[in-house]
Amino acid sequence: MPAYEAGSEDLEFTGPAFLKGHGTENDFVLLPDRDGRIELTAERVRAICDRRAGIGADGVIRVAPGRNTGTGAEFFMDYWNADGSLAEMCGNGSRVFARFLVAAGWAAPGTLTFDTRAGLRTAWLGEQGPVRVDMGPVTLGGASTAAVAGRRFEGTAVDVGNPHLACLTDVPLAELDLSTAPDFDATVFPSGVNVEFVHRPAGPVAEIAMRVHERGSGETRSCGTGTVAAAAVALAADGRRAGTLGVRVPGGRVVVTVADDGTATLEGPAVLVAVGRLDATLWPDAG
Amino acid sequence: MPAYEAGSEDLEFTGPAFLKGHGTENDFVLLPDRDGRIELTAERVRAICDRRAGIGADGVIRVAPGRNTGTGAEFFMDYWNADGSLAEMCGNGSRVFARFLVAAGWAAPGTLTFDTRAGLRTAWLGEQGPVRVDMGPVTLGGASTAAVAGRRFEGTAVDVGNPHLACLTDVPLAELDLSTAPDFDATVFPSGVNVEFVHRPAGPVAEIAMRVHERGSGETRSCGTGTVAAAAVALAADGRRAGTLGVRVPGGRVVVTVADDGTATLEGPAVLVAVGRLDATLWPDAG
Repeated sequence: MPAYEAGSEDLEFTGPAFLKGHGTENDFVLLPDRDGRIELTAERVRAICDRRAGIGADGVIRVAPGRNTGTGAEFFMDYWNADGSLAEMCGNGSRVFARFLVAAGWAAPGTLTFDTRAGLRTAWLGEQGPVRVDMGPVTLGGASTAAVAGRRFEGTAVDVGNPHLACLTDVPLAELDLSTAPDFDATVFPSGVNVEFVHRPAGPVAEIAMRVHERGSGETRSCGTGTVAAAAVALAADGRRAGTLGVRVPGGRVVVTVADDGTATLEGPAVLVAVGRLDATLWPDAG
Repeated sequence: MPAYEAGSEDLEFTGPAFLKGHGTENDFVLLPDRDGRIELTAERVRAICDRRAGIGADGVIRVAPGRNTGTGAEFFMDYWNADGSLAEMCGNGSRVFARFLVAAGWAAPGTLTFDTRAGLRTAWLGEQGPVRVDMGPVTLGGASTAAVAGRRFEGTAVDVGNPHLACLTDVPLAELDLSTAPDFDATVFPSGVNVEFVHRPAGPVAEIAMRVHERGSGETRSCGTGTVAAAAVALAADGRRAGTLGVRVPGGRVVVTVADDGTATLEGPAVLVAVGRLDATLWPDAG
């Protein structure tokens, strides 16, 4: 039974079809657009992502046909932030993107390569279950510190395409007050920094826990690149350059693998929770 | 085209059909259930209302067949709060409920009477546009005060089925810090109180503005009974017992009419923004 006949065929919703999904509670509205006919605008993205007057999401992902850029990729992940700005990539979003392609039958399970504004990305996934995505190189930098709510934390700078400061700490994570942005050394991080607070049990470690404060967003339920940074620093503290670690975040659990060549993959849940059609009120005329 | 074929017929979503809507940004997931087959549980409501892992809403409204209570009402508004508790009624939700009935062709526009846990309610609405609902009697009480963020406000107790303290103030509403609950006189309000901060222009008044702190919820974008309380106090300050006032709230604008018999109606927007079908992940087995 078509979803919108459940009320009645009198209900005429004239916006595009959508899905809602999330990866470790980083949530997205997906707009399937195999034919490349959907024209997104900042205004439309903001209307959709409004958590009271719209559907509500951290961002919109248009599932678009590949761009004519010579990559041969069949699909392009056209990711927009909730504020209407364009984003290069989103690790949690790329899992949901790949899950949709397989769930919709647009792509076969297995290895899937798609285009993003940050270049080609690869995902590995089955018919169901978690999705693994490549996160590119992870590079450890020098020591630095962050301070938040009157406490000072020692950390390590990490580059995962964006800047991180991962701080191993014995302070119980539940006690941290991350309602304000941490202070950091602006000479080390001139463009700001995402700060991870990481609990690493004593001894050889299979799983760590973290909370993260993202620059521009505040504390979030999850940060894909942040889990990679935290895992790399925890592995190094264990005397390892490569390895696999589970990472618990407020929004769930992911698994980070750092390979001998310094590249990382991130495996985690990708959940589609609903499908439907938007009303025109969330799809204002393109100006 | 059915909404969930937009991706592919391979997308099998096995939960119930839903709509999302809002009234002055108080938002709801509606579950159309003309045959009374949907079994809601607290767990299902919490899953649906989760703003990251679910759809996200302030509450769920099951559009149910009338109960066998002798009222003859054809429909019952089965309202649940986001935390899974049952609620008696919701003024903003009742507008969205009525708008759905007409949009779906389940009821004709005009005057519509439906059952709620607080008894029968009446709505007046056209094919499109705002919805007016009866809010029952509004009764002014004595003077009392509230204090928030170091400031003290003089107000008037108002009973709109639930307790309010409406405070006329010259403090610019944008300057108020409502991030903490106001202090109030617990001897006057033993069950807590919703506190309205009301800006009333000088002279004969056609429109007021307010912000509201709801007991148990914190500051909200809108509170239906709160706008009625604010209007009644503003009318009284104007030397009137009855009359009509526009009320601007952070989530939009409503119109309150207090009649000579002391009963009130509330007219405001009711917007359906999307229709679709839930996945089973938001519809855990009834335990």
